[in-house]
Amino acid sequence: MRAVDLIRKKRDAGEHSREEIDFLVSGYTRGDIPDYQMAAWLMAAWLRGLNRAELASLTEAMLYSGEVLDHAEIPGKKVDKHSTGGVGDKTSLILAPIVAAGGLTVPMISGRGLGHTGGTLDKLEAIPGFNVNLTLGEFSRVLRECGMGLIGQTAEIAPADKKIYALRDATSTVENIGLICASIMSKKMAEGIDALVLDVKTGSGAFMKKEEDAVELAEVMVETGKRMGKKVVALITDMGQPLGRMAGHANEVMESIEVLSGRGPADLRELSIELSGWMFFLGERTKSVEEGKRLAEGIITSGQAKAKFRQGIALQGGDARVVDEPERLPAAKFRAEVTSGAAGFITGTDCEQFGIALAMLGGGREKKEDRIDHAVGLEFHKRIGEGVEKGESLATIHYNSDAKLAEARGLIAASYQIGDSAPRQAQRLIHRVLGI
Amino acid sequence: MRAVDLIRKKRDAGEHSREEIDFLVSGYTRGDIPDYQMAAWLMAAWLRGLNRAELASLTEAMLYSGEVLDHAEIPGKKVDKHSTGGVGDKTSLILAPIVAAGGLTVPMISGRGLGHTGGTLDKLEAIPGFNVNLTLGEFSRVLRECGMGLIGQTAEIAPADKKIYALRDATSTVENIGLICASIMSKKMAEGIDALVLDVKTGSGAFMKKEEDAVELAEVMVETGKRMGKKVVALITDMGQPLGRMAGHANEVMESIEVLSGRGPADLRELSIELSGWMFFLGERTKSVEEGKRLAEGIITSGQAKAKFRQGIALQGGDARVVDEPERLPAAKFRAEVTSGAAGFITGTDCEQFGIALAMLGGGREKKEDRIDHAVGLEFHKRIGEGVEKGESLATIHYNSDAKLAEARGLIAASYQIGDSAPRQAQRLIHRVLGI
Repeated sequence: MRAVDLIRKKRDAGEHSREEIDFLVSGYTRGDIPDYQMAAWLMAAWLRGLNRAELASLTEAMLYSGEVLDHAEIPGKKVDKHSTGGVGDKTSLILAPIVAAGGLTVPMISGRGLGHTGGTLDKLEAIPGFNVNLTLGEFSRVLRECGMGLIGQTAEIAPADKKIYALRDATSTVENIGLICASIMSKKMAEGIDALVLDVKTGSGAFMKKEEDAVELAEVMVETGKRMGKKVVALITDMGQPLGRMAGHANEVMESIEVLSGRGPADLRELSIELSGWMFFLGERTKSVEEGKRLAEGIITSGQAKAKFRQGIALQGGDARVVDEPERLPAAKFRAEVTSGAAGFITGTDCEQFGIALAMLGGGREKKEDRIDHAVGLEFHKRIGEGVEKGESLATIHYNSDAKLAEARGLIAASYQIGDSAPRQAQRLIHRVLGI
Repeated sequence: MRAVDLIRKKRDAGEHSREEIDFLVSGYTRGDIPDYQMAAWLMAAWLRGLNRAELASLTEAMLYSGEVLDHAEIPGKKVDKHSTGGVGDKTSLILAPIVAAGGLTVPMISGRGLGHTGGTLDKLEAIPGFNVNLTLGEFSRVLRECGMGLIGQTAEIAPADKKIYALRDATSTVENIGLICASIMSKKMAEGIDALVLDVKTGSGAFMKKEEDAVELAEVMVETGKRMGKKVVALITDMGQPLGRMAGHANEVMESIEVLSGRGPADLRELSIELSGWMFFLGERTKSVEEGKRLAEGIITSGQAKAKFRQGIALQGGDARVVDEPERLPAAKFRAEVTSGAAGFITGTDCEQFGIALAMLGGGREKKEDRIDHAVGLEFHKRIGEGVEKGESLATIHYNSDAKLAEARGLIAASYQIGDSAPRQAQRLIHRVLGI
């Protein structure tokens, strides 16, 4: 088998066998196939597409390029959730303690924020001392002890994905549903899970702005997961405005604790309960999603969720006191209001811009190497459908430097669409569920 | 400007400006743009296509990546011919002396054989002592002295093409009319010529087997040349069977001398006169192609063509005595006949296979580094339309080792199509002329 022939095959819209995809991925990971051949193949795959069987092969080849965790020594099912990301999307911090408190194991391997979206690892690092860089051995010990663990991708996990992703980034072959699917699923499958709940975001703050793209990505991810013998469902959920009222790292930890305490904004609470319900159901902890949701609510009310979060933080070296004393989280020095220039109703938001404004204030990265400020954040006061007076505050900016404050404030103000009347129909938070 | 954005643009079927193409080609040639980015761009260009304006920009950018010859010190027009290659296509060796003897300058920069086609440089090297590796200074001196020079591509000529071609070869982005056009035309334009006659082959022994592909390539090359201010025509000519009766390096030199002496096979003589006629006309030596053809015939008859070939060989260090004593050329030790298994008429040939058989015998390369045997060759006894008896010889193999003799013989025999009657219409040698 020769790489040049496989490039030609995909260029001519041919379908690869499992063996051919294995050859490409393992050869590239080992360094036998050079970057330029992989780049040509990626562009051919981008333009010609990969069918469902090819995607499953690609995902498996990337998965088995590295270590696949095996938690056989831990009884019960292992489940996880993956979100395609957005603004204020902090559900991982809420779900992990709820589901672990409910008796399942949640081995979460997460990512960092890039561009306008936040990353779970970055949010966790807002907690003083929290260490996301556990070895796989330490991760296993934490999971055994408390049922939840939240770490970053290690060098052992899907090295092919790491190498291919860097190449895609440099060759404009990122935005492709098949390649995105393989990248996500190879990492998630390496966690050694039995079931996965996918939260595929759609709307102005999501990567997949159009619902049909979100649905397509959800479908291929669900099918790929099922072809690999896992239970997978995907919820298409709304990212037409920030999730919850808080964005920014310390802010989001704080709001997650609110929900774990039985408080917090309705939308974030609703989505967290829904996703927990699905995790409990797919993990065979409950007989239905509804029963799973009730279980999740009970775990919150009883204080078990909060207790589990304390335990998880402590086991990963973090200061667990933040759960009860959130003032221990880093706080920004200054506050500024973003006021409305008109009276009316919020009819929509250009949600991605909130993430960009946050990054501008130091709360996000443009490049992987950039450092971030965990204390800066945004607090949203108005949701779509709500009324606003002229001069009333739409959002509060928590900032440490006024270098880009005016620009960020302008961006935020411009990202609210204000009309004379509220939208007829409120956008539902959960658009649909696929893969049942 | 960033390469990654230009890759995205072509991926999304955008049209590049001249500046964008310059940026890509000059950046890649300098090494600022890595192989993997160029590979992704090439695949995107292969699949999305390049329009005529983009092709002219690409060709010019590749041309000006290196030195462009200027023969201002030599009076009169400079003309050349380029053929897309086939089996037995030795017209360069015939045209250069005829046209130079007619008073024009022919600065030919040629290539080597690869796969089933022969290369002019390899054929010339069958002449003892002939040096195709002149410096550009030596080339200029030879041209001044005798009006013809035949050399290989130097490092100074279109270095971008050399680098891009190697990458295309490794990334399955070779067979694309636009990229082929830019590669050919950038090198030809670097010769510093005023006019170019293109001989675009079609049929079973050509790269472009289908006539419509040959016509498309011819059209883009003519247009690209004209956009660059040159006189260009393209002849679409037949490669459904070998040109002339001889293939192999020493064999083809011998047959070229035959034509220069006023003898030789009719088809080779006809094409050589036709191409000479066009070169004289485009080079403004004659007022019409017909007048140019008569001039060429006169130059042959008068012995001037042969004399010019002697002079050219001697100036490039070769043994000019081969022109009158062809036995000085390397000869193969053994001969074997390929006999017909049936009686009937030759209705067609799988002409590419003759080239493959010749390569098998040592007369061609699979890889660029391979050495070739100039003495081995094929002698074809039957042309399409001719009758053959069972057991009669179709071709004679000139060989030095019987290692692959049986295989080559089988291939040659199988490549003749023999039917009960001659084809109704003989295939014309010159299908059409484009660009007039």
